[in-house]
Amino acid sequence: MVEIAAFADARDWDQFHTPKNLAMALVGEAGELVAEFQWLKPEESSLASMSKDKLRDIELEIADVTMYLLRLADKLEVDIVRAVRDKIEINERRFPIDSID
Amino acid sequence: MVEIAAFADARDWDQFHTPKNLAMALVGEAGELVAEFQWLKPEESSLASMSKDKLRDIELEIADVTMYLLRLADKLEVDIVRAVRDKIEINERRFPIDSID
Amino acid sequence: MVEIAAFADARDWDQFHTPKNLAMALVGEAGELVAEFQWLKPEESSLASMSKDKLRDIELEIADVTMYLLRLADKLEVDIVRAVRDKIEINERRFPIDSID
Amino acid sequence: MVEIAAFADARDWDQFHTPKNLAMALVGEAGELVAEFQWLKPEESSLASMSKDKLRDIELEIADVTMYLLRLADKLEVDIVRAVRDKIEINERRFPIDSID
Repeated sequence: MVEIAAFADARDWDQFHTPKNLAMALVGEAGELVAEFQWLKPEESSLASMSKDKLRDIELEIADVTMYLLRLADKLEVDIVRAVRDKIEINERRFPIDSID
Repeated sequence: MVEIAAFADARDWDQFHTPKNLAMALVGEAGELVAEFQWLKPEESSLASMSKDKLRDIELEIADVTMYLLRLADKLEVDIVRAVRDKIEINERRFPIDSID
Repeated sequence: MVEIAAFADARDWDQFHTPKNLAMALVGEAGELVAEFQWLKPEESSLASMSKDKLRDIELEIADVTMYLLRLADKLEVDIVRAVRDKIEINERRFPIDSID
Repeated sequence: MVEIAAFADARDWDQFHTPKNLAMALVGEAGELVAEFQWLKPEESSLASMSKDKLRDIELEIADVTMYLLRLADKLEVDIVRAVRDKIEINERRFPIDSID
């Protein structure tokens, strides 16, 4: 999304946004996201049993991960949709449906 | 993307895909992504100086992170685009442009 | 442990072992460690119900995390035991026993 | 360290400390640790050029990672020192010195 780049540019943060640093920031945010879930029982982590506040916190952590993911993809000119489709194809070959049950 | 859910459903993996577990899988993949960069000098992590093979590996790690991120958002009915816009607004208030230089 | 430094020195890897890179390597290994647990139900993650092979894999991931943790602490001259005691004291003030139940 | 278990026991937190949850907590703390380094240039991440405050923050993050690592090892009865020695031996076979230069 263009807003993410605009936000960084307006603050002159582009100099810090090497792919290496963005990957670090991404895993840091992913760590904050996983921390939201760490003491929950599996059933407590479902949408039905989650408080509104908790869900809001998680939404904003998901946003943080997404922003660094898109920024990293942008810097490396990765077409994320194509990359996901490629990876799904690879996974389909690695885990064929017939072999599973 | 609907293919991600279809892939999991076809393999009866939906039972494992609690939000908690998906968050764990996401951070695990983010760890693999950051590992691609860990020994690179900052300038070696740029698109210009990266080998095709390295870039391909990174693309597929980005795909892995994306898939779990979308899957998690889907399970929690998070509208990622809206969440990102909300977070950018929050960040704009936290880091106003005037205050920076 | 002195063997960890010796291993890196013998391979001329010390040049890569900046604190920044070691922190990245650490979180990457922590990601591999968490991946060992991601599809397990809580009760399946206990020692009693874990296969020997699984436990062995986890042990070696714990070793990887430990090695980068010790290496990072070494590079920054952090006394880990003292740091842990300091952090426990901080936590005791933040979460006094009386306040909990 | 026995203080770590005592701290958790006194707060009745042992019930949350399944190996799975501890692995999540560990990677979350590793994410906070890596976040301390994410915008630093490699040379800024060295001990010599780091501020006292920054170093203190890092020390306490190292402590957090260590506490969950020790707690996890304790729960799974992993002898960390032996695991590290085993892993170094494996690495020595995988990366023999002669093959490197």
